[in-house]
Amino acid sequence: MNSIADVQNSNDLRNMPINRVGIKDLQLPVRIQSQDGEQATVAQCTMTVFLPADKKGTHMSRFVALMEENNEAFNYTTLKKITHQMVQRLESDSGDICLTFPFFRRKTAPITGIQSLLNYQVSFSGCLKKGVYQSTLRIIVPVTSLCPCSKEISDYGAHNQRSHVTVTLQCNGEITVEEVIDWVENQASCQLYGLLKRPDEKFVTEKAYDNPKFVEDMVRDIAVILRNDKRIDGFVVESENFESIHNHSAYAMIVSE
Amino acid sequence: MNSIADVQNSNDLRNMPINRVGIKDLQLPVRIQSQDGEQATVAQCTMTVFLPADKKGTHMSRFVALMEENNEAFNYTTLKKITHQMVQRLESDSGDICLTFPFFRRKTAPITGIQSLLNYQVSFSGCLKKGVYQSTLRIIVPVTSLCPCSKEISDYGAHNQRSHVTVTLQCNGEITVEEVIDWVENQASCQLYGLLKRPDEKFVTEKAYDNPKFVEDMVRDIAVILRNDKRIDGFVVESENFESIHNHSAYAMIVSE
Amino acid sequence: MNSIADVQNSNDLRNMPINRVGIKDLQLPVRIQSQDGEQATVAQCTMTVFLPADKKGTHMSRFVALMEENNEAFNYTTLKKITHQMVQRLESDSGDICLTFPFFRRKTAPITGIQSLLNYQVSFSGCLKKGVYQSTLRIIVPVTSLCPCSKEISDYGAHNQRSHVTVTLQCNGEITVEEVIDWVENQASCQLYGLLKRPDEKFVTEKAYDNPKFVEDMVRDIAVILRNDKRIDGFVVESENFESIHNHSAYAMIVSE
Amino acid sequence: MNSIADVQNSNDLRNMPINRVGIKDLQLPVRIQSQDGEQATVAQCTMTVFLPADKKGTHMSRFVALMEENNEAFNYTTLKKITHQMVQRLESDSGDICLTFPFFRRKTAPITGIQSLLNYQVSFSGCLKKGVYQSTLRIIVPVTSLCPCSKEISDYGAHNQRSHVTVTLQCNGEITVEEVIDWVENQASCQLYGLLKRPDEKFVTEKAYDNPKFVEDMVRDIAVILRNDKRIDGFVVESENFESIHNHSAYAMIVSE
Repeated sequence: MNSIADVQNSNDLRNMPINRVGIKDLQLPVRIQSQDGEQATVAQCTMTVFLPADKKGTHMSRFVALMEENNEAFNYTTLKKITHQMVQRLESDSGDICLTFPFFRRKTAPITGIQSLLNYQVSFSGCLKKGVYQSTLRIIVPVTSLCPCSKEISDYGAHNQRSHVTVTLQCNGEITVEEVIDWVENQASCQLYGLLKRPDEKFVTEKAYDNPKFVEDMVRDIAVILRNDKRIDGFVVESENFESIHNHSAYAMIVSE
Repeated sequence: MNSIADVQNSNDLRNMPINRVGIKDLQLPVRIQSQDGEQATVAQCTMTVFLPADKKGTHMSRFVALMEENNEAFNYTTLKKITHQMVQRLESDSGDICLTFPFFRRKTAPITGIQSLLNYQVSFSGCLKKGVYQSTLRIIVPVTSLCPCSKEISDYGAHNQRSHVTVTLQCNGEITVEEVIDWVENQASCQLYGLLKRPDEKFVTEKAYDNPKFVEDMVRDIAVILRNDKRIDGFVVESENFESIHNHSAYAMIVSE
Repeated sequence: MNSIADVQNSNDLRNMPINRVGIKDLQLPVRIQSQDGEQATVAQCTMTVFLPADKKGTHMSRFVALMEENNEAFNYTTLKKITHQMVQRLESDSGDICLTFPFFRRKTAPITGIQSLLNYQVSFSGCLKKGVYQSTLRIIVPVTSLCPCSKEISDYGAHNQRSHVTVTLQCNGEITVEEVIDWVENQASCQLYGLLKRPDEKFVTEKAYDNPKFVEDMVRDIAVILRNDKRIDGFVVESENFESIHNHSAYAMIVSE
Repeated sequence: MNSIADVQNSNDLRNMPINRVGIKDLQLPVRIQSQDGEQATVAQCTMTVFLPADKKGTHMSRFVALMEENNEAFNYTTLKKITHQMVQRLESDSGDICLTFPFFRRKTAPITGIQSLLNYQVSFSGCLKKGVYQSTLRIIVPVTSLCPCSKEISDYGAHNQRSHVTVTLQCNGEITVEEVIDWVENQASCQLYGLLKRPDEKFVTEKAYDNPKFVEDMVRDIAVILRNDKRIDGFVVESENFESIHNHSAYAMIVSE
């Protein structure tokens, strides 16, 4: 088979390095290290490396092979190791891996104590740039938001809705998914649950009403927490409220300096 | 070019008619006849015909050509005409056209009277089956739903959210998009608006609270209207409430007998 | 808490039964019984029951509770059992459960024998209607399609693309996901792989070229297989080719009589 | 109504400016200035402003009102004007507007000359930051890519597929959508068409085969053009090939220095 032409290894004359080249949206089953042990889930995986100007192409099959060979659960440490392996195997000095997956957490209803799972979308990313490693953790936390203005101006009731709070963290140490979920859920008008009995529904209804938040409040109250955590080098906090009185969203974003 | 082989016109020996063959998700600019005149929008278009067992293939380019030639605004009558043209031009006796597009309606805020557009997703379908024509109109109307249980059991507040009510009508005569929107919006806890000033927001908040509806109520109250309209041969009403206290939807559907 | 009003259990006067009411798009981790043992994946779950005209509402939390309690892997038998449990617990005589999830299969590259996973979207549905149970299996199999016309008329080359073949089966007995995948992949111009080395890529390129198929051929060749399987009460076969020369799809569908 | 509390105008004590706050995914009909005159289409619109640390909230309804009042077709100049108006009306010094919409271009089949429309996804963005205006143009151009490796190693045929080339330009002057489309389509293995007759299909099949391109080649060949245009302050070029032999994409990206 040696005689099959190796087109990707020939030289390139355009003098144009490529910042990222690789594979996108490879779907694969993975295990994630959570606080309660390993969790089996399914990830969309994007893997790329830097390609210098004098190389014509990368070796696409090596990305897939690397993931096929891995049989460890993903956490801060294993993603770092695999990112290094990828960059080495692809003969580059820089590269990125991003895994996006549903993450589940067992929650306890506030009054009856009945338990159920709630799903969150999580992205784990590892980025190696000329030898320096940076980890990024991105979590979309669905919550209830209740509008302070609607509450204030109305004789009764207040519009509320599901919102997506997205926290993106550049970390220099391990931050767990559960920590971030707690930060967000504690700042929302109320958190969500998979399963609520009637007494629980009374509780979450009244809690949201007692705790109105503008989209601006959501991002500020979370950013205040994030800016004080030494493990965080940088962050973005976003909130998108799927307004129950409009057909568009209210949106706010804070980027750390 | 006459000598280019016409592969699609050869015979087929599998004795297997094809119910629908054609093109899917062609995007094209269209004009829609609305109550306030013509409306320019962009449609996803799917066009198929019946292919008898003895024909190897259809002529894909004729579907696109037919749409390219059309320059009339779409309404009940023009869709019927074009469906007939398609079936004839594709040398079949049966076929379907489905156009899905955003439709806009100018609405007036309930207190201040300020105007704004609201968008709805509409599908117009024409189906010709061995000479018999049937039109289908499908509209997704976004509304506010407020939970009666949450209101009843809570000392204050009530969870509410955006919901999608989907009405699908098989019609033997013209029914306008606006009629269907009115039917749905009048039965919701409250309708949505693009633009609300503070006095309007007070109004819609209180109106939803005064008018709680389960997902079951939404579909029943609309079905009661539909079953009495002689232009409607059959219908499906669905409501999906994007629950503000859960990360899943409540859902209900009624199909006419 | 007994004094909290049970709004859903009151009577309803509109004389309008609801065909389906329940929850939609609950995300949950599940295990699926495959030919190679159990497979951990993540499902979108929709669960509904029939609600007679004289009942005001269903009990949404019971659907979630049922899924939370289940700890068996899903296959034909367990889905049937859980569908029966749901209908009983919701005090109805009819109901549907649909689980949609990514399914993975280990494949072997045609020349080098290197192994990798490929993902398929699968829906398992159970439907109980007045005591009669019906199972539905729906699989989207991604394949390569190569256009016979393009090959025939061109001096060299032929346009090809990824296609989605969707097979929906109403079954009176167990049919495995792997059986359906084999039926489809064997009829495609070529099957897909996660990982191919250069000799494999040569093989699949030439195989697709040797095996051109119109969208009409795909659905016919699969339908011929399905109509002869006694376990299948009814089927739909669809193929959507994401044409590499257009920005729309070619599409065909066969519905069993 | 003057006595209704103005909750958004109260002070905020968290000392946390918000980089962006406003509305997201407002759908609205718009007109776009194209080379062939105005084009009616439908946009998703996101509008945000900077909110200083001492302001509690923004005025969401003013964003929608601004778009409702506008009746000019969008081009470089009008977007700049409206971005300035938004920032002024929201009493900020910085803000962003992004409109994303399908754009249509009339194309001529290469041999028969038959005409048809092709759709492209375009985003126009205007960003005003402390008085400095920056325009961003982002276009997703769907093309055919044919794999050089597959061609080289195979005795006949070559896998090809639809690809999305995304060009994002930061501009200091007007660049038309059509210019960008031309740059991309001229570098692809072949361009797409809505409508092709048999002689055209022969042409595009052979053209793609004569013009193989790796995902790396696509982004490099386009970047070479972009780096020489003085109107462009910065760019990102991405290509995603929806591989016809895999179920994942090949991907490459170049960011200008």
